[in-house]
Amino acid sequence: MTFSAQQMRFWSPEVRELEPYVPGEQPKIQNLLKLNTNENPYPPSPHVVDAVQEALLHQADLLRLYPDPDASGLKQAIAEQQGIETSHVFVGNGSDEVLAHIFKAFFIQDEPVLYADITYSFYPVYSQFFGLKTKQVPLNERFEIDIADYQQPNGGIIITNPNAPTSIALELTQIEQLLIQHPDRVVVIDEAYVDFGAESAVSLVAQYDNLVVCQTTSKSRSLAGLRVGYAIAQPHLIAALETVKNSFNSYPVDRFAIVAATASFQDQDYFVEQCQKVIASRDLLIAQLTALGFDVLPSKANFVFATHPKHDAKHLAAQLRMDGIIVRHFNKPRIDQYLRITVGTDIQNQRLVDALKRL
Amino acid sequence: MTFSAQQMRFWSPEVRELEPYVPGEQPKIQNLLKLNTNENPYPPSPHVVDAVQEALLHQADLLRLYPDPDASGLKQAIAEQQGIETSHVFVGNGSDEVLAHIFKAFFIQDEPVLYADITYSFYPVYSQFFGLKTKQVPLNERFEIDIADYQQPNGGIIITNPNAPTSIALELTQIEQLLIQHPDRVVVIDEAYVDFGAESAVSLVAQYDNLVVCQTTSKSRSLAGLRVGYAIAQPHLIAALETVKNSFNSYPVDRFAIVAATASFQDQDYFVEQCQKVIASRDLLIAQLTALGFDVLPSKANFVFATHPKHDAKHLAAQLRMDGIIVRHFNKPRIDQYLRITVGTDIQNQRLVDALKRL
Repeated sequence: MTFSAQQMRFWSPEVRELEPYVPGEQPKIQNLLKLNTNENPYPPSPHVVDAVQEALLHQADLLRLYPDPDASGLKQAIAEQQGIETSHVFVGNGSDEVLAHIFKAFFIQDEPVLYADITYSFYPVYSQFFGLKTKQVPLNERFEIDIADYQQPNGGIIITNPNAPTSIALELTQIEQLLIQHPDRVVVIDEAYVDFGAESAVSLVAQYDNLVVCQTTSKSRSLAGLRVGYAIAQPHLIAALETVKNSFNSYPVDRFAIVAATASFQDQDYFVEQCQKVIASRDLLIAQLTALGFDVLPSKANFVFATHPKHDAKHLAAQLRMDGIIVRHFNKPRIDQYLRITVGTDIQNQRLVDALKRL
Repeated sequence: MTFSAQQMRFWSPEVRELEPYVPGEQPKIQNLLKLNTNENPYPPSPHVVDAVQEALLHQADLLRLYPDPDASGLKQAIAEQQGIETSHVFVGNGSDEVLAHIFKAFFIQDEPVLYADITYSFYPVYSQFFGLKTKQVPLNERFEIDIADYQQPNGGIIITNPNAPTSIALELTQIEQLLIQHPDRVVVIDEAYVDFGAESAVSLVAQYDNLVVCQTTSKSRSLAGLRVGYAIAQPHLIAALETVKNSFNSYPVDRFAIVAATASFQDQDYFVEQCQKVIASRDLLIAQLTALGFDVLPSKANFVFATHPKHDAKHLAAQLRMDGIIVRHFNKPRIDQYLRITVGTDIQNQRLVDALKRL
């Protein structure tokens, strides 16, 4: 929709310049195989449903009351699952909101915030939203983050690990190097996909006063529909996030989300089992795609990033779409010949592989 | 908690200056009578519980998928209830988030945003958060908004109607005057409490291209625990809000909240009935407080604002607290001798009145 200059005069000048994030398509058509937004193919823990059921039976009246603005029960469940202190946990309305608060809390500085040229495409949007200076650091020719490239003046660093859409993980020793090299800056590790095989930096939080780790329940906990993300850091950094949150929206996590996410963190067995299933399916899918002639980057995530030397990626995505399968194609420099494919169940992945064989 | 300069160096300089909003207390103690945060004493429509129950039974698997980022089903239910077009509706994670987006979308201008000196205390916080110029316009000596005082250069105007914590409403003709007097600026009417007896400005939206009305499900729909707020305006203003939202957090309303709020908007009879009960209880409470010697402002909200010529307000609040009753006292100029008391059920209000009689 376009509007007249007469209508646009009401917009704040800086909002007229904003280029919003474009989320992956959420089609309303049935029977489409959605391998485009890195959702988990398995449902959440049955304990999640039980917990909401229980809340409906015994606490429906409480919906009239504001939720706990600190979501302390949920923070406690996260802390117990992670083996850390509750005072090291911040929660928000999905990790997108947590990341927005992180950009505001730590990155408004004189020097530019650094992130990879190919990474989560919301980072440039947050930067523009908060008026931040930024500098994109190119991945190397193998699409890896080379931490040596980050040795330059900066107002903070954010790294997705494993990176998206490339799926490649950094090792913890490299992250530790970054933390040591930038003792006066906050280094944020966005671990949306960490549970599918990468090493989490949470184990470094107690040691480094400049580390913020961000995680989400949307991927490995199958709770994308619930909107719960969290950050783990030392209390002086958590306090900055609370200050930002309480200057924007005091009650971002609703009563159902608190109850449901808490139940998820209390069911460790289910969590581990589902992650292992996704990892096994991913490795099978990589083998199958490789057999079809794809080059697939080494994935530690619940998606793969693949290119085929003989088939145009955009064209492939369009053809798959006609077959009822959606994958994500980014019309961007360096990666326009790649497809980002979410790992489904083995049956779903087979359907994808069969469709690719026919093409 | 205080932190060392060494620790504070990680905070963005502007975040070090933020003075966050302080929400009303949400005590975890049982049996306290909470008349401090303007929640509804009645539960939400039973259809809300049914709808979530239904979602749990038949769509629990869908929790693994992101919600509709546009929440179009919910927007449609709001539009139908309000008798407007869906394209005139924006939804967010509580009206606090919607208001934050409003400040960003419309108020970053060369001139200051205007709001009352005594009004919702989140407005100065949003203004600081987004670095806005502001000018507070004093209420008149009867604690009323006088729209003549707003005839000055401005970058936008926001009015709570009925105002909080004063409970006094503006008439629609006065709001229309404001809209006509400021044709090049956005005028926001924050109607958190409008359903308890004031006139809504939604009826003016079709006619005025500079009007944004903000409402919430937290008060009149007994869904404070759910976090759903919304704005109503012409599409060129809604588009600005969507741009801001998609530059901050694409999926702010979760699947449970969408389902539950939709059911609430579809149960008009229950909604009207509960509002009428609260209005009747309020009028009785005002009569009882007046009989005890209180001066009570004329309320169109689900709370009253009262002062007693012979009793210090802060002291009264402390004594009520010892009796297990929480009301809100603001330690601020002009209103430090007032108590803001949420309207409860008749039984709850009687408990308050009895406690006050004893004091």
